[in-house]
Amino acid sequence: MKTMKKYVSDSQVIKTEMVLPNDTNTLNNLMGGKLMHWMDIVAAISAQRHSNSIVVTASVDNISFKNPIAQGNVVTLKAQVTRAFSTSMEVFIEVFAEDIPANLKYATHKAFFTFVAVDDQGRPVPVPSLEPVSQTEKELFAGAMRRRQLRLILANRMDPKDATELKSLFDLEGVSQKQ
Amino acid sequence: MKTMKKYVSDSQVIKTEMVLPNDTNTLNNLMGGKLMHWMDIVAAISAQRHSNSIVVTASVDNISFKNPIAQGNVVTLKAQVTRAFSTSMEVFIEVFAEDIPANLKYATHKAFFTFVAVDDQGRPVPVPSLEPVSQTEKELFAGAMRRRQLRLILANRMDPKDATELKSLFDLEGVSQKQ
Amino acid sequence: MKTMKKYVSDSQVIKTEMVLPNDTNTLNNLMGGKLMHWMDIVAAISAQRHSNSIVVTASVDNISFKNPIAQGNVVTLKAQVTRAFSTSMEVFIEVFAEDIPANLKYATHKAFFTFVAVDDQGRPVPVPSLEPVSQTEKELFAGAMRRRQLRLILANRMDPKDATELKSLFDLEGVSQKQ
Amino acid sequence: MKTMKKYVSDSQVIKTEMVLPNDTNTLNNLMGGKLMHWMDIVAAISAQRHSNSIVVTASVDNISFKNPIAQGNVVTLKAQVTRAFSTSMEVFIEVFAEDIPANLKYATHKAFFTFVAVDDQGRPVPVPSLEPVSQTEKELFAGAMRRRQLRLILANRMDPKDATELKSLFDLEGVSQKQ
Amino acid sequence: MKTMKKYVSDSQVIKTEMVLPNDTNTLNNLMGGKLMHWMDIVAAISAQRHSNSIVVTASVDNISFKNPIAQGNVVTLKAQVTRAFSTSMEVFIEVFAEDIPANLKYATHKAFFTFVAVDDQGRPVPVPSLEPVSQTEKELFAGAMRRRQLRLILANRMDPKDATELKSLFDLEGVSQKQ
Amino acid sequence: MKTMKKYVSDSQVIKTEMVLPNDTNTLNNLMGGKLMHWMDIVAAISAQRHSNSIVVTASVDNISFKNPIAQGNVVTLKAQVTRAFSTSMEVFIEVFAEDIPANLKYATHKAFFTFVAVDDQGRPVPVPSLEPVSQTEKELFAGAMRRRQLRLILANRMDPKDATELKSLFDLEGVSQKQ
Repeated sequence: MKTMKKYVSDSQVIKTEMVLPNDTNTLNNLMGGKLMHWMDIVAAISAQRHSNSIVVTASVDNISFKNPIAQGNVVTLKAQVTRAFSTSMEVFIEVFAEDIPANLKYATHKAFFTFVAVDDQGRPVPVPSLEPVSQTEKELFAGAMRRRQLRLILANRMDPKDATELKSLFDLEGVSQKQ
Repeated sequence: MKTMKKYVSDSQVIKTEMVLPNDTNTLNNLMGGKLMHWMDIVAAISAQRHSNSIVVTASVDNISFKNPIAQGNVVTLKAQVTRAFSTSMEVFIEVFAEDIPANLKYATHKAFFTFVAVDDQGRPVPVPSLEPVSQTEKELFAGAMRRRQLRLILANRMDPKDATELKSLFDLEGVSQKQ
Repeated sequence: MKTMKKYVSDSQVIKTEMVLPNDTNTLNNLMGGKLMHWMDIVAAISAQRHSNSIVVTASVDNISFKNPIAQGNVVTLKAQVTRAFSTSMEVFIEVFAEDIPANLKYATHKAFFTFVAVDDQGRPVPVPSLEPVSQTEKELFAGAMRRRQLRLILANRMDPKDATELKSLFDLEGVSQKQ
Repeated sequence: MKTMKKYVSDSQVIKTEMVLPNDTNTLNNLMGGKLMHWMDIVAAISAQRHSNSIVVTASVDNISFKNPIAQGNVVTLKAQVTRAFSTSMEVFIEVFAEDIPANLKYATHKAFFTFVAVDDQGRPVPVPSLEPVSQTEKELFAGAMRRRQLRLILANRMDPKDATELKSLFDLEGVSQKQ
Repeated sequence: MKTMKKYVSDSQVIKTEMVLPNDTNTLNNLMGGKLMHWMDIVAAISAQRHSNSIVVTASVDNISFKNPIAQGNVVTLKAQVTRAFSTSMEVFIEVFAEDIPANLKYATHKAFFTFVAVDDQGRPVPVPSLEPVSQTEKELFAGAMRRRQLRLILANRMDPKDATELKSLFDLEGVSQKQ
Repeated sequence: MKTMKKYVSDSQVIKTEMVLPNDTNTLNNLMGGKLMHWMDIVAAISAQRHSNSIVVTASVDNISFKNPIAQGNVVTLKAQVTRAFSTSMEVFIEVFAEDIPANLKYATHKAFFTFVAVDDQGRPVPVPSLEPVSQTEKELFAGAMRRRQLRLILANRMDPKDATELKSLFDLEGVSQKQ
């Protein structure tokens, strides 16, 4: 059963939150640490839905915090699995903020988390493969291999010479356009 | 006053926590999201001490979660500024876990966060430069430039061709030995 | 602007949560009070989206708690406005629980909350009307009038003799089939 | 032992809270969801005291939120069992708010919750009957039968034709005066 | 108005809590720190009721933690002002724990906190005097002077030679019998 | 192993916190109860490090709250064992507050907590003795005996006549200079 294919739509999760006083810094904006806490929960549920397993966070990719989110605003986090490896999954999280009385909604953050599926003793277990369907899903699927190589290099578990997918990063225009 | 030099010792912060039931996942281990929340708080205090300013989280580098930390264990987070740029600072966070009754203490996680110093309107303000003293401080200081280039590329704000410092990463033995 | 029509799809909100230890009772099941707290937040966001205003909770209809939700399970709350009155809105909330490793997902609770749109002094303000489209939306829209009469009677603000819509309840087969 | 009589005074519980920033909405007033969370806790303790059992929330009756309670105010919740059925109990909760520096105290909310007594496997167990003594206790006891019929009809578990107690509601002056 | 007399009954506060997982230590018993947090809240409300002012915690007397309180148990905290000085008040807190399914209730802790009444700039303001009525109230009132001298000595604000009331402590049988 | 000597440096713990909105009273200053909660956690970790055991809070000495700590400020708590008895330990906690943008740091509170080391059934177990080294450590070590006698008298477990160490308190210049 664990070897069957699954689709992106099987793992989509939406989590909506209001920014409360204790979530904010001195400027009354959402603290980065609280946002990452929510990202981890929504991404873990997404990875659970793909794998029908217990999951543990394996890594978080570089996150850039550009747009402050004010107290009282509504935060929507959307997560979906982009690619499955043997026992691990990459999850893509998009964050949107709304100032509803002002009728404003805008994308604020993107992040990639990886999770490992485990049994109740914490030992890795195989996960279904993911079959991308739409053009966006296929691009996220392809990019997952480059991001994986970067993770392995940064964790000192891959020799940069062997990162054939990642190398295009340094020959071409810029990785984030590909993300 | 903001242009004076400061030392690593000026920004060292220690935060000690106990892992409580609500901080844990199904396996009774600390959730990654909660750990990042604590990392953000201890790193923000460190950046505040360096800059004597309000600070906001600008980015989080790739974090790898290898060692689970069990409920009831004690977590110690140590943060220090590694390098200051014009209005931003890189902060290095080391995490240690202890099972005190078993007399075990071990390093579990490392992370780099960056913060921008701002005034009470949220506008960036200059920060003191950092003067590394020990050998370790000097290595963290030097590595900060490579990590900054990688961040800028990943945020699509630098052309990989211009990342002269980072290039050594792909010619040499492995970046994490240099971190 | 406040007098325009809006659709059910404009106010749909999804909130996904994991049941943590502090949310549970002695039997390790989600406490009713915590579930109502989540219902209130997701429903308030839905009413905000319909009205583009600050909203305050006006009433909660009878809720029946039949299915326990175990610690570690995932709870999904879906909210949508069913009908708008001059300054108030009825919101319908459906709750689903998942035991993901066991691949079980089931509907657990339904609730109706009402909210009043207010300005920043707390004074009621008009809200857009709601235009139901699908058959389900039309049934929820129609039922909203009966539920409103029952609320007014229970709050001692309507004479039961005048509750023409509600009276069908006592002549016909049973109100919950109509909800 | 479970078949003995108990009195209202055996199950009276008082819970006093201060309204903190995280409990409030955009207008700095207590959120309805947080108030219901407190109601559920105080009512559950009351039902435990009557039954000397574990209890689980079975239902919440219609609640009307009229009076906002400001941040910093003190909230007092009083709960007592009004009537016991074979394995369930109705609990009446009254809420009072105080602005102590202004020397103001006023009744703000009333609610009826029902609980089922269960063993540690979650199976219903019998509870003592309740013996009302004062005039107010006797009125709450009598009204409990009408409210129970309304709950059963709303949960689609009773035919409205059979709700002999409840019918008076539509013949007489208004149910809430009887509550 | 602030100079009038008040009675113990004017400041009595009851706060009832359930011990949740996050409130407990490794042995699943309520942590002392959490209990003191609850004591501070209930005592502050009591001092507010006596003074009709904002109050700030001035001191906590020696507390002895003898009886562990298990997770799931119910904790009742009762607070009342014992004596008022010019701008400060002593509050006595008694804590009771219940294992309700086991039908056990027992006194677990006693504590004395003092509070200062302040205006909204934090400056001390006069408080009404307290008139003890019952024998117990009179003993608590008398003991308050001895406890106050001990506090002042321990805070290095009184010379032990001048502590005429406290001296009886060392001549007689034991202070806690007098408390 | 439990009978070996340990040093003060073995049990030093630092905990750094930011004062968040929910931690504050009406004047936006840290509540005494929240500060005691943090004191209890940092002191318990210190006692665990000395004893390599589970520990439970046994008592808290008189605490005086003089300096308010404002919302947004940083609080640093430092704990260390001052003396070990057969199965119990005294822990000294110092609290510092910082208004970092204003470049202010000041000592705010001192407290003494005692803990008992226990096995997983809650039974007391022996702890290593503590060997003071510096002059300050020796003074804290000596004062621990006087404070212990005062605790025992206040808990009605010692006759004041037998408190030979404590008696100097009433013959000499003032106890807090000796603390």
